[in-house]
This record gives sequence, structure tokens and C-alpha cells, in this order.
Amino acid sequence: MAFTDIATRTYNHGWRLDPIVRSLLDTDFYKLLMLQLIYRLHPDTQVSFALINRSRSVRLADTIDEAELRAQLDHTRTLRFAKKELIWLAGNSFYGEARMFAPDFLAWLADFRLPDYELRTVDGQFELRFDGPWTHTTMWEIPALAIVNELRARAAMRDHGRFALDILYARAKARLWDKVERLRALPDLVISDFGTRRRHGFLWQRWCVEAMKEGLGDRFIGTSNVLLAMDADLEAIGTNAHELPMVAAALSDTDEELATAPYRVLEDWRASYHGNLLIALPDAFGTAAFLAQAPDWVADWTGFRPDSLPPIEGGEQIIRWWQDKGRDPKTKRLIFSDGMDVESIEATYRHFHGRVRTSFGWGTNLTNDFRGCDPNGGPNGEDALAPISLVCKVVAANGRPAVKLSDNPAKATGDPAEIDRYLRVFGNAGRAPQPVNV
Amino acid sequence: MAFTDIATRTYNHGWRLDPIVRSLLDTDFYKLLMLQLIYRLHPDTQVSFALINRSRSVRLADTIDEAELRAQLDHTRTLRFAKKELIWLAGNSFYGEARMFAPDFLAWLADFRLPDYELRTVDGQFELRFDGPWTHTTMWEIPALAIVNELRARAAMRDHGRFALDILYARAKARLWDKVERLRALPDLVISDFGTRRRHGFLWQRWCVEAMKEGLGDRFIGTSNVLLAMDADLEAIGTNAHELPMVAAALSDTDEELATAPYRVLEDWRASYHGNLLIALPDAFGTAAFLAQAPDWVADWTGFRPDSLPPIEGGEQIIRWWQDKGRDPKTKRLIFSDGMDVESIEATYRHFHGRVRTSFGWGTNLTNDFRGCDPNGGPNGEDALAPISLVCKVVAANGRPAVKLSDNPAKATGDPAEIDRYLRVFGNAGRAPQPVNV
Repeated sequence: MAFTDIATRTYNHGWRLDPIVRSLLDTDFYKLLMLQLIYRLHPDTQVSFALINRSRSVRLADTIDEAELRAQLDHTRTLRFAKKELIWLAGNSFYGEARMFAPDFLAWLADFRLPDYELRTVDGQFELRFDGPWTHTTMWEIPALAIVNELRARAAMRDHGRFALDILYARAKARLWDKVERLRALPDLVISDFGTRRRHGFLWQRWCVEAMKEGLGDRFIGTSNVLLAMDADLEAIGTNAHELPMVAAALSDTDEELATAPYRVLEDWRASYHGNLLIALPDAFGTAAFLAQAPDWVADWTGFRPDSLPPIEGGEQIIRWWQDKGRDPKTKRLIFSDGMDVESIEATYRHFHGRVRTSFGWGTNLTNDFRGCDPNGGPNGEDALAPISLVCKVVAANGRPAVKLSDNPAKATGDPAEIDRYLRVFGNAGRAPQPVNV
Repeated sequence: MAFTDIATRTYNHGWRLDPIVRSLLDTDFYKLLMLQLIYRLHPDTQVSFALINRSRSVRLADTIDEAELRAQLDHTRTLRFAKKELIWLAGNSFYGEARMFAPDFLAWLADFRLPDYELRTVDGQFELRFDGPWTHTTMWEIPALAIVNELRARAAMRDHGRFALDILYARAKARLWDKVERLRALPDLVISDFGTRRRHGFLWQRWCVEAMKEGLGDRFIGTSNVLLAMDADLEAIGTNAHELPMVAAALSDTDEELATAPYRVLEDWRASYHGNLLIALPDAFGTAAFLAQAPDWVADWTGFRPDSLPPIEGGEQIIRWWQDKGRDPKTKRLIFSDGMDVESIEATYRHFHGRVRTSFGWGTNLTNDFRGCDPNGGPNGEDALAPISLVCKVVAANGRPAVKLSDNPAKATGDPAEIDRYLRVFGNAGRAPQPVNV
């Protein structure tokens, strides 16, 4: 006779809230690295972040209940770093370096909690905004995105029976494993999970990370998710993001100061991490402009993370620049992380193999590829589980508007008049619209 | 914190035997229908069944432990029909008929137990044989096959980690659901599960049946598995098998008697089931011979189950015969059950649509299609989970050798000298070798 564990069943059917974020470590590693810099250098800067749904046709507020969203955000605000988490941050080595986080920073983290949020529903979309000290608002980016994405997935699956869910996950697992088997054919692959913000759900991301570990062995170098890195004894992966140059740019008093903001940020970064973690993000205001104006010392950095040009085009541009500067690209590294999937990873890997070291940060298409997996979904995969292009960006610093130009105008954010001013300062060279799928 | 149900874990890690067959109803429905006829008409006939592995290159005894096989067979011999099972057999309607099983037969079933078996290992194969009254040995066919097939699958998965098994079943589920979605495109499809004997495992067959029910609705008319039919409130499907003409043929004293044995069996069948369940199996000694010599009244039967000719060829042959006999094929039914898969189901359905009623008994490729699903398996699907062609056939009746000719010489069984005699009696018309994949 079948034995039913009554306690488990009662719990499964009756719980009040299934929290999406259960730890403040359930965030991207670069947020902690940036946070330490912000804590040290910008403790009084006020920075506002806002949710931006680039997939405007998807009316998030029509499928996600605002009260549920509030409940998840409120739950996340109750979280504190656990003692064992702080001990791990203090004791673990990152990128081979011990003591990456200073004791005073860790002591400060012990009291950290997420600040309040502002949430309104306007025309089928959520206006979700975080105002306050940069040291606090920055930490909302990843949990806010993970929460909205997972709530959307839960809403899409709400009316699914037990069997449809079984098929859904069977297909998604089979799909991911097929991708893993394809990637196995690339012997020098270096790849990591960058999929926290866009994940279908926390448990699914964990499964994806286990699959990568199981299938790719040493070629899977780790995950950007700090909690999963700790739990699975993987490397935590990541360096820095657009918010650093965006805030530096927004706080610039003159156009001259604006023009040099991206490089001041790199100097601060190098000083903060003692010459480690030297990966630059070139595209905040256009890669061509960044490279053209870059001081020579930028060519001494380990590499770049091109994030909005097509990967081969972006990589070739950087390789030419290194060669112009007399550097050997073979000693350098390019990290590709913009909407990669198995086809573009294979093509990029093969294109650059032997010419430059490459690594891949695999995000949305690793942790949220359910297109066509839903047995109740549409015939062409235009289903409610297809990922959307959702970001949480800096919109203001000390009351001044923030701008991102990107190499892809479709990924630009900010006030149109300010975008025009930035384009006058940085130029428009090499920027070309590309579809933003994820 | 994760909660571990210690009792469940201890049980999962420590049990002595995981029984493959847990009920005497876990068999094909036609066995019970035939058993009632045998009980009534042939209570004293001695019939021997033997396991025949037509996939000789698969050395079953190299992968399956003989002691494990004995443990499973012994466990199956401990089973009795449960009271609720007999009540269900008595109270349920089959093919719309109430009281299909007579009270005296059900009373006799209450004391039924499987007879002893003979098992030896010779040159990497099992010699498994069941001798005794036909009323008892016949009931070994399905459990013996299900046990050997499931033990083989278990052996193939023994060294698999938790993750590899997860991928394996995810792929198999995704594959089956893709098949189900293809079959959905056939609006008048009539299909049932015939996969008990060849199943990967009992739980997997149950999942397959649930998938068919969920995905095909009314087009899935039921299962040959009596236990699953009872549990899931589905129709139990099936009529009769080769063992009836094979035993009748073996017991024939003269060649003249041999030539008419297939029709005597049909008369017995019709009398036993009061003119219901009138589906004939034409191929025991060759379909062409069967049709050429058949009395006119055979054309009054509901239909045929062609089981060894290619389905379209076999169906056309029968349709021509009905037309020659002045019968309208549109009022008749053909049941296809020989190694069908989604491609041959589609092709056969489309070929005969509107000309004759068709139904499909889907066996091995429904309940045991794991080709290429094993992440630890070979690259071309030549893995240990690929199904094999294993049967359990009548080899003797009252000490006389039994023969099956089949339309496909590769499926013929019996002593070569006897096969020659049968070929002299029935002829060789229309028989042609076909590959036997499953």
C-alpha cells in the first residue's frame, strides 16, 4: 500500500509563502565586489534603480499579482546575511585570492538589509523603483529581477496539472542536457552560469548548475550566484557591471569629466582589488569610443567583457585594438555574456580558438529556456514561459539622470535629451541596432 | 532547512526485494480470456512454454544475475488474486459485456498460483521453461517477460548516478510526449497500450499509460494490462493469441486435422464468448494459407489482427479477401500490433483511413523506447536499454512439439522437421523475411 507522509503533504498544500529569494547571497558575485567598492568610495552617493521591461508587449502586471510581488519583495527585506555566509565570504578564496572582502566591510554587511521599494502598476506594467544610498539600492537589482521572472513563470504554470508540469520539466531537462552534450565537444571551453537574474526559478537554476557541473566537469568554472557557489563548492564568478561607469558619468560636472568617467572607474577598481579582477566592460557608452579614448594602461588589463556587440564583431574589434597597442591577444581574455546560447557559444569559441582566451557567461538561455516546452503552450513557442528582456538599471545618481548608450541602441537607457548629450561626448561610432531577445 | 523523512530514506536504501510483478492482474487481458476457454475446454492439456530470446547477440545472463531472476520469479509465485481483483473481474463490463467471466471460473481463480519453473544458464542465455497444465503455464508468459525485461533495464542502470537517471527519464518522457503530440493529429485514431511484456518497468508503463490518457483522451481506448485498467478505470483490451492455434495444431493427429485446427479454435472462441470479441489472428501458420482455406463464416467476424506482415501489405490482403467474400471492409476492423511506432501508425492510419476501421495496439515502442536516452550510453543508441525481441512461446502440448510459422520466417518457432511438415500442410505462400526489431 502506498504510504503518504501526512506532514509533508499538509505542508505542501498549506504553506503561506514560497519565498523566491531565501538568502542575501542569492545574488550575483559582482554585486558584492562592486558593493565593497561603493561602501569604500561612495558611501554617501544616492542612486536610484528601476525595473525596465524591454519586452513591452508582455504586460507583466496582467499575469503577476501585485500583492504577490509585494509579499516576495517584503520577504526579501526580512533577510540578513547569515553568520555562516559571512564566515564563508571571509574565509573563501575568490579567483585564487584570499581575503577578497575586508573585515570592516563584512562587519558592515552583518547589519545589512535591503531598503524599501516603490511599486505601482501603470498600464499593465510594474513601476518598481529603489531609491536610497547606492550601498543599499544596488543590492536590489538581482533579487528584484529573479522575483519578477519567477513570479511570471509561476503564473504561467498556475493552471497546469501535475502531468503537464512533468512534461514541461522533462523537456527542459532533455533540452539542456542536449546543449551540455554539444558543448562537451569543445575541449578548451571555459564557461560559467550567469543566469541568476533571468532564471525560471531558484530550484531550476540549481538543477542547471548541477547539470553543467556533471556534464562539463572542469570546463564549467563556476557560477555568478554566490549562494550556489557556496552550496556546491564552486567558484563564484564575476567582476563589475555597467552601474559603475553609469554612476560615474551621471555625477560628472562637465562634458570633459564625462568623457573620462569610464577610465576613472577602472582606476578605482584596480586600486580596490590590488590589480586583480582586471576585466573591463567596454560598452557602457559605446565600445568604439571607449577603445579610441582609452589610456594605454587599459591594454595591460587581463581582458574585456564585450556585452552588446555581436560577439565575433566585438571580439575582433578588441583584438585589433590590442594589436594596435602592441599587446599579444593570446595572453588576453574575452568574456562573452550577452544573450549567448549553444550555437553562438560554438561559433564564437571556434572563431577565436587559438587567437585569444575566451570564456562564456551563460545566462538566460541556460537558466530559462522553456521555449516550446509547455505542453499547454502555443505551437510556435510563443508561450508564457518564453524569457523576456527585463533589466533593473541605474536611473539616477544624486538626483542626476543616468544613461547607458550600449553598442546596441535597443539596449540604451535614460532620458532622451541626456542620451543626445552623451552621444555628442562619446560619438555614435560602431553602434548599430540588434534585436534584443533576452 | 531541508527535512528528510528518515523512515522513507531507510526503506529506500534497505529493502530486500523490489518486486517487478505485484499482482496476478499485472498481465495481458487476453491471457484471462484465453484462460477461461482453456479452463473450460482443455483442463487436462499439458502445455510447455519457454523463453526465446530472438536477439541472440544480447547475452542476457551476462547482465542479469540468475539469483535475482529466481528471486523475482519466486516472488511472483507467492501472488494470489486479491479479493478486490476478483470482485472487479466479476463486476466490470468488458467490451460492453457484463459477466464476461463465469462464477465457477472466478472461484477457481481464487486458488490460482503460478506453477514452478525450470531455469538454467547456458552460454550466456537463460533457459527458462514452464511445464504443467496449460491452465497454469499459460499465466507465466507475461510476468516472465516483464521480469526479464525489467531486470535487464535495472542492470543497465545499476551504475548510473542520480543525475544520469534524471536525464534518462527526462529524455524518455520528452520523447514519448512528442510521439503523443504527433498522434494527436490523427482525429479518428483508436489506440491502446499493448506494452506490458516488453516494458522498461512497471512504473514506467504506468507513466506511459497516464501520458496516453492525458494526451489522447478518448482516442486512447485502454490498455491490455488488467491491473492498470482496473487502477486507472480504463478499458481492458485484448482477445486471443497464437497459443490457441499452436496448441490445437500440435494436438492434431493427422495432417487433415492440422489443416483445420486454426478454424476449430475460432469456433471454440465464438462459442465461449457468445459471439463477442470476434477478432481473429490470421498469421500463426501464414495469413495467405489461413485466408485461402477459411470457411465463409470467418468473414462474418468483426476483424483481424495481422501480426507479422508489414501492416499495409497485411491489411490490403485481408481487405481483398473480404471483398472477394462480398463483405464491406468499411464495417470491419483491423488491429495492428506488430512492432508499431509513431511513423508506422501514422502511415497505416492514413493508408486505410475511410476504407476500413483500424485500431492500434502499441507495445514495445510505447513502453520501452529508451534508445539514445542514456547519457552514459553509446553514441548511436546501441545501448543496453535498447529493447530486445524476447518472447515466451508454447513449445509443446501433451508432449508433442508446437510450431508457429508466422508470415515472417524470422518469427517462426519450433523444431525444424515439424516446421517443414507444417509448411507442407499450409504452404509457404506470402511468407517473406522481415527484420524483427522488437
